[in-house]
Amino acid sequence: MLPRRPLAWPAWLLRGAPGAAGSWGRPVGPLARRGCCSAPGTPEVPLTRERYPVRRLPFSTVSKQDLAAFERIVPGGVVTDPEALQAPNVDWLRTLRGCSKVLLRPRTSEEVSHILRHCHERNLAVNPQGGNTGMVGGSVPVFDEIILSTARMNRVLSFHSVSGILVCQAGCVLEELSRYVEERDFIMPLDLGAKGSCHIGGNVATNAGGLRFLRYGSLHGTVLGLEVVLADGTVLDCLTSLRKDNTGYDLKQLFIGSEGTLGIITTVSILCPPKPRAVNVAFLGCPGFAEVLQTFSTCKGMLGEILSAFEFMDAVCMQLVGRHLHLASPVQESPFYVLIETSGSNAGHDAEKLGHFLEHALGSGLVTDGTMATDQRKVKMLWALRERITEALSRDGYVYKYDLSLPVERLYDIVTDLRARLGPHAKHVVGYGHLDGNLHLNVTAEAFSPSLLAALEPHVYEWTAGQQGSVSAEHGVGFRKRDVLGYSKPPGALQLMQQLKALLDPKGILNPYKTLPSQA
Amino acid sequence: MLPRRPLAWPAWLLRGAPGAAGSWGRPVGPLARRGCCSAPGTPEVPLTRERYPVRRLPFSTVSKQDLAAFERIVPGGVVTDPEALQAPNVDWLRTLRGCSKVLLRPRTSEEVSHILRHCHERNLAVNPQGGNTGMVGGSVPVFDEIILSTARMNRVLSFHSVSGILVCQAGCVLEELSRYVEERDFIMPLDLGAKGSCHIGGNVATNAGGLRFLRYGSLHGTVLGLEVVLADGTVLDCLTSLRKDNTGYDLKQLFIGSEGTLGIITTVSILCPPKPRAVNVAFLGCPGFAEVLQTFSTCKGMLGEILSAFEFMDAVCMQLVGRHLHLASPVQESPFYVLIETSGSNAGHDAEKLGHFLEHALGSGLVTDGTMATDQRKVKMLWALRERITEALSRDGYVYKYDLSLPVERLYDIVTDLRARLGPHAKHVVGYGHLDGNLHLNVTAEAFSPSLLAALEPHVYEWTAGQQGSVSAEHGVGFRKRDVLGYSKPPGALQLMQQLKALLDPKGILNPYKTLPSQA
Repeated sequence: MLPRRPLAWPAWLLRGAPGAAGSWGRPVGPLARRGCCSAPGTPEVPLTRERYPVRRLPFSTVSKQDLAAFERIVPGGVVTDPEALQAPNVDWLRTLRGCSKVLLRPRTSEEVSHILRHCHERNLAVNPQGGNTGMVGGSVPVFDEIILSTARMNRVLSFHSVSGILVCQAGCVLEELSRYVEERDFIMPLDLGAKGSCHIGGNVATNAGGLRFLRYGSLHGTVLGLEVVLADGTVLDCLTSLRKDNTGYDLKQLFIGSEGTLGIITTVSILCPPKPRAVNVAFLGCPGFAEVLQTFSTCKGMLGEILSAFEFMDAVCMQLVGRHLHLASPVQESPFYVLIETSGSNAGHDAEKLGHFLEHALGSGLVTDGTMATDQRKVKMLWALRERITEALSRDGYVYKYDLSLPVERLYDIVTDLRARLGPHAKHVVGYGHLDGNLHLNVTAEAFSPSLLAALEPHVYEWTAGQQGSVSAEHGVGFRKRDVLGYSKPPGALQLMQQLKALLDPKGILNPYKTLPSQA
Repeated sequence: MLPRRPLAWPAWLLRGAPGAAGSWGRPVGPLARRGCCSAPGTPEVPLTRERYPVRRLPFSTVSKQDLAAFERIVPGGVVTDPEALQAPNVDWLRTLRGCSKVLLRPRTSEEVSHILRHCHERNLAVNPQGGNTGMVGGSVPVFDEIILSTARMNRVLSFHSVSGILVCQAGCVLEELSRYVEERDFIMPLDLGAKGSCHIGGNVATNAGGLRFLRYGSLHGTVLGLEVVLADGTVLDCLTSLRKDNTGYDLKQLFIGSEGTLGIITTVSILCPPKPRAVNVAFLGCPGFAEVLQTFSTCKGMLGEILSAFEFMDAVCMQLVGRHLHLASPVQESPFYVLIETSGSNAGHDAEKLGHFLEHALGSGLVTDGTMATDQRKVKMLWALRERITEALSRDGYVYKYDLSLPVERLYDIVTDLRARLGPHAKHVVGYGHLDGNLHLNVTAEAFSPSLLAALEPHVYEWTAGQQGSVSAEHGVGFRKRDVLGYSKPPGALQLMQQLKALLDPKGILNPYKTLPSQA
């Protein structure tokens, strides 16, 4: 249980969210909502093959014999009903649509192996799909690739209550795993807006970052082992559950972040940190981005090892979550807002550290207003303001999304730059993200417009490359970003990527048209 | 500066090390000592090619023309003096010796690139060498491979004082980097016994674990970018300094832990954690291994986020550091000893947490005696007891070394098992290590004995495999362990390792006879 709020904090922190009772009262399931955008009645998404200049590669098409073979491999797990295939053909942002005619729902690694062996022999392309919550179109077919869903591979295989090592199938939903390990006094090392739908296999395949990255680091460090089925059906067993293992090349690393293009992850072994006994969240208003940065520096010094998240959002983000989701700001209107989370083992110590920090931040003018939460309900409400920005944006119109890594001191400049550059052509230009140097830059418009796109690209990528930044910090490459990799990766690295793909998937059947640049 | 010792601890913690004044008084440079074993006067180490069944591969031999070419590439950096080549041909444990006739000392990545281009064309084998402190013979030639030393590539290239991101050449000595970043209020994310000699490039190439692993995790998480020169001289630039970068495959991961067999690391970008304001070390005696485990569990719960190290050693380890290094135990004789380190941002809070934990541990009989340190001198002295075990062992005779990952609850069983199995054939059988599941199992004897080896191997490996453990937790594979990989890696994984080697180094010139199993 979360501890009660201690007494040391300034009085202004103890008041409730102003005029927000109505909005706060509603149950907030930020991540379950990830699915609700594909509600019936919304206009049909254009086919990817018609909207983008992409040509089908010479894969075979699924025959009756193939379907019969699949039915033998996964009895009852072959979906061909056009109605049922609509949702898995469309991405969460509803801007890409494939025309796959078959979706397979294996339950075991062996079934995945048999499926891939068949597809490899028959030269059939395969699109692995977890929760289908990705932002770059990596999880939906571009043409008629077979969709291989991990949805039924959702068993926890083991959990070690001393070490916190969890071994589970790839299709386990992140939020369910969180619940499972929290009941055992641990937490998942990652958390993200899509947790109610996303699968752990998809998280690993896309090297998901998210909200706990600041504290618990990358999946390259927390994933201990993987079982992966290779393109030809070979099961590659790298499923150790050891914290240290230097017996040769760390092969599992190849598959973390490779978006299903080198193999299909079927089982994951991951290290879960102990559940913190005390969690506090502060939501603060800052007068400018310079103050956001200085608050972060101060915070790192004064909160040290208990700092578990530091997120920021600008005033327009707050307006949009207010307008589209009816969430009211818990603090006075400010140019910027920050959300600070602490997690520790001693509630009193944490409260004292946080109290000192907040007094200092307020006293020195870094922060102009704020609110605090320690009880789980209010903690969730404050987090919802940040986590549901994506959803608010998707209700604002067509969204141009960029997920950039930049030097922290330049993190917000591109937002200001774009507002000036686009003027009234954009509905809104917003910036929010993580103070580990990751900006989520979003531009909304009433509808897709080629001229607005031309004003944005390649400008945003060139600007990012000019800062030695990354054009994809955590969302990955998928279909959308594959031709902009060159802004962040030199030719030698792209060539080695192609060589690895050719080594592991010589026929190119795994998630084609994704991750690697389209051939010139 | 480290804070002064607070007042809350039990009285028994405040006394000095009993009768240890003399020993403690000497300056302890545990890591500078890593070099001193190759002192003149010690008997010559047998040639590896004569002691082990290994056959030279058909590489070219270095000609006068090659030497002239090297002299053009690295003017003044070509060493051919037999005297100067003695030390770099012998490993730190002094059980392996190559017969290389040339050592190259480049200063830049470009020079490394030119050297490898030449060697690739001429089919000359190359042995990369950092501080030559490895335990598995990965850093010394087996035959006449050219030694490519990173010793002169020792420049810090940049340090970002807000993010803590350090970019430096591969030949920087770990201890010097530690000093550099500590002056700037950060620490290196890794620390190990060999820090006074080892190079950061070697640390990354061998995926070094060490003493801070428990808190800061693996180099797969903390290394942000690498520059690597491939076998044919191509410079692969994966040198980002971004915390997040999901632009395609994370190629740098391939080289972390590949022991120079896939490419030579020339530049490293690494994330340094902020320097803790308070560091405390407790050194405790435990009545049995069950109590060591329970102390660890209790510790994780009560110290939580401030726990930065938890090491253990058995009574024989303590006897050996006493006998060979004249370090006296600071606590009463016990079957086991644990060293607990905390690092935090608030000295008072940390002291209170540690005080509560120690009271509990003593009160419940988990711990029978102990001492504490907060001032840097005593902290170093307590750490020396643990860090210098390797050195004490090397003075005890011939050492059979095993570095195993095992389930924590079985961690010490193999030591007990071996003592019974070997009886008087072994001089000493000792166990020490990290409570992240890493046992350093060492057996000493007056001299190398094939019959003792036969009693140890494959028994130790089979025992480890029976526990799904790893036959190399952190020391790596090198020359010594390459033929026991099969105990921890399935054939499919070994095959993929071979394929990656063939892709990146088709002529096999990079660190041959290492890391990969010798061909049947």
